[in-house]
Amino acid sequence: MTNSQFNLSINSNRLLDRLQELGQMGVDNDKKRTRLAASDTDKAGRDLLVIWMKEAGLEVEIDRIGNILGVWYGAENRKKAPLLLGSHIDTVINAGMYDGCYGVLAGLEVITTLKEKGFMPTRPIAVAAFTNEEGVRYQPDMMGSLVYAGGLSVDDALSAIGTDGTRLGKELERIGYAGTKEPGFLKPHVYIELHIEQGPILDKLGVPIGAVENLQGITWQRITIEGVANHAGTTPTEMRRDAGLAAARVITYLRDRANNSNGSTVATVGTIDFKPNAVNVIPSMATFTVDLRNPNEQRLQEEEQALAGYLKELAASEGVSITSEQLVRFNPVTFDQTIVKLIEQVASDHGLQSTRMTSVAGHDAQMIARICPTAMIFVPSIDGISHNPKEYTKDLDLILGANVLLNVVSQLTGK
Amino acid sequence: MTNSQFNLSINSNRLLDRLQELGQMGVDNDKKRTRLAASDTDKAGRDLLVIWMKEAGLEVEIDRIGNILGVWYGAENRKKAPLLLGSHIDTVINAGMYDGCYGVLAGLEVITTLKEKGFMPTRPIAVAAFTNEEGVRYQPDMMGSLVYAGGLSVDDALSAIGTDGTRLGKELERIGYAGTKEPGFLKPHVYIELHIEQGPILDKLGVPIGAVENLQGITWQRITIEGVANHAGTTPTEMRRDAGLAAARVITYLRDRANNSNGSTVATVGTIDFKPNAVNVIPSMATFTVDLRNPNEQRLQEEEQALAGYLKELAASEGVSITSEQLVRFNPVTFDQTIVKLIEQVASDHGLQSTRMTSVAGHDAQMIARICPTAMIFVPSIDGISHNPKEYTKDLDLILGANVLLNVVSQLTGK
Repeated sequence: MTNSQFNLSINSNRLLDRLQELGQMGVDNDKKRTRLAASDTDKAGRDLLVIWMKEAGLEVEIDRIGNILGVWYGAENRKKAPLLLGSHIDTVINAGMYDGCYGVLAGLEVITTLKEKGFMPTRPIAVAAFTNEEGVRYQPDMMGSLVYAGGLSVDDALSAIGTDGTRLGKELERIGYAGTKEPGFLKPHVYIELHIEQGPILDKLGVPIGAVENLQGITWQRITIEGVANHAGTTPTEMRRDAGLAAARVITYLRDRANNSNGSTVATVGTIDFKPNAVNVIPSMATFTVDLRNPNEQRLQEEEQALAGYLKELAASEGVSITSEQLVRFNPVTFDQTIVKLIEQVASDHGLQSTRMTSVAGHDAQMIARICPTAMIFVPSIDGISHNPKEYTKDLDLILGANVLLNVVSQLTGK
Repeated sequence: MTNSQFNLSINSNRLLDRLQELGQMGVDNDKKRTRLAASDTDKAGRDLLVIWMKEAGLEVEIDRIGNILGVWYGAENRKKAPLLLGSHIDTVINAGMYDGCYGVLAGLEVITTLKEKGFMPTRPIAVAAFTNEEGVRYQPDMMGSLVYAGGLSVDDALSAIGTDGTRLGKELERIGYAGTKEPGFLKPHVYIELHIEQGPILDKLGVPIGAVENLQGITWQRITIEGVANHAGTTPTEMRRDAGLAAARVITYLRDRANNSNGSTVATVGTIDFKPNAVNVIPSMATFTVDLRNPNEQRLQEEEQALAGYLKELAASEGVSITSEQLVRFNPVTFDQTIVKLIEQVASDHGLQSTRMTSVAGHDAQMIARICPTAMIFVPSIDGISHNPKEYTKDLDLILGANVLLNVVSQLTGK
């Protein structure tokens, strides 16, 4: 039933089996799955992927930042810019099985299916696994695709020092994935990334396909507030210059603004540190991070400006000094309307509901959008859970998403 | 001038010199002064004090918790309950020179002066240096006086494990201060503690003597908030169960209540920890401490109840679960009105301004108040700074405070 309704349909069992098999790479004795970029477990996943790409008859290329590209060249299309599919196979710590891997393996499955059916694409079709999308071990995240799109120099990226003190370039050499191709060596004609939503919307709506039309902008800041350490008992409230209190005021301020944004802004303070961090000493210093997102660049800038203004007021009212440092800044991305419409059309042609939506997570697609028309397809994540072993998408939804991708690709590369 | 105005006056130079000399004990190569309870540097300070007590002709007794008592028995008063003076000589890390030491050395100076002047007290006069008032290495603070007053068993106190993994009982043995006397072996008739204010009030008012009429109650709680870790980008604001935000709301709530308390309540959140503490993950857990103080037991209870009620509301409104654990609870203490009035009277008789005040720091006096009429005398701390190398009280104020103590003691023990 799930395949028969499609003009073309993938080999469901092969896709599901491979997701399971790749999902076993990097599972430790406590059953926790971790494949940090350029680690031994990442190598195990990469090796498996390369074997499958070769089995499918793809030309496998590794670039200097370790991105793996499997390219299907047809007899007469070698000189054309390829249609590129892909995502990543690195994971966070104690990850789920679907984030990234689904897009890479579905891309491979789409190509394999088209080959098997004797499809004759007008241009090469390739699938990429980009290095270090998660950014857990090395910063910034989405690194491989950012480098591929020319947004960060290869050498700067290779020099990144990891949370474990290692250098990315050395680690890529060590695991055998420091390739020779210059990142960006294949300029895509179009890039399409299939991904689990990692959010609750499709699951809540009961809609199987998300036609992702844009992607939130992200800004990360580290904010440091300096007050004065003093005795918790003997310092009258009005004389306090409490860095911790000021930090708490920023956190509640950000939530109040998010509440008033009609759902378009989300703000997260995920890390915090007080000094001296003693029960009976007023904090002299509070350091915390702010993760702010909005799909509209102007509104994101308004959020940043509002925060900056609030910090200024707060410094005056609480007698503290405040500095902030930009850690990450990615502009919102608008995806290609033609491809987004095609995704909706293909879903509709096959009797599937779809909804236009905003990606509120970062993805490799936002980087590749710098160099070619790009879009994304989302499938539901149960309860929106991701970056967690409980991350789950039903088999049926995985298959429907891959079949939509297959038919979108065949339309974009058919004669 | 500073002595001549008093009926009786201490030997100023001896007191000031001894403060300097004791202040040199435990000063490291970086010039930081640290004498944590039962450490080698604490031993150095104790040894010096014992020498001086013996020079003054006092009988030196060490009890099982390491409290040092120097007792001046007169020919005919041995069976009477002693008037007890004292404080502590252990310090925080990187401490000032006055906190605690001033009360002990001024007590010794008062006794020495009275002896030298041929004063014949109606009851013994003793001076105590209580073990581990600061509570930096071993918890709880004010331990020696708490044990002396029967508020904590000796064996429980000796079993305390320090921040460095040591056991207090073993460390007292090691430094030679595990005495044989049962704590509380001398039941005081009256206890008077002279101390630097460690707060800004006397310095701001320009008043040399504080007649301390009561002492704030203190409650320490550790609060743990459990929410749900989730993706900072994909989780809509209304679906978040953000433990960090809930913690921030508690911090601002406590400040708002303190602001509305007319200065009687102070609240401090000095420590905080988020888990998993990642920039782009909503905190699943926030742990922090609350230090709440009020000089009135009923109002302190009201603060505790208000906080508990707020935590309940917050758990419901933010979808988090909250637990709290009591770490420390000391009731407010009301000092003996007769002694407080006598302190005021003695100051006034000698042309000194005094003000009644509340101690907002904890002191050994709050423990000893459980077993006898008690009061405290404060002298100014410049800018209220304490627990800091910048802690400073002018020599003149040190001398005036000791002379007020001397004359209070002579009135309480004169014929």
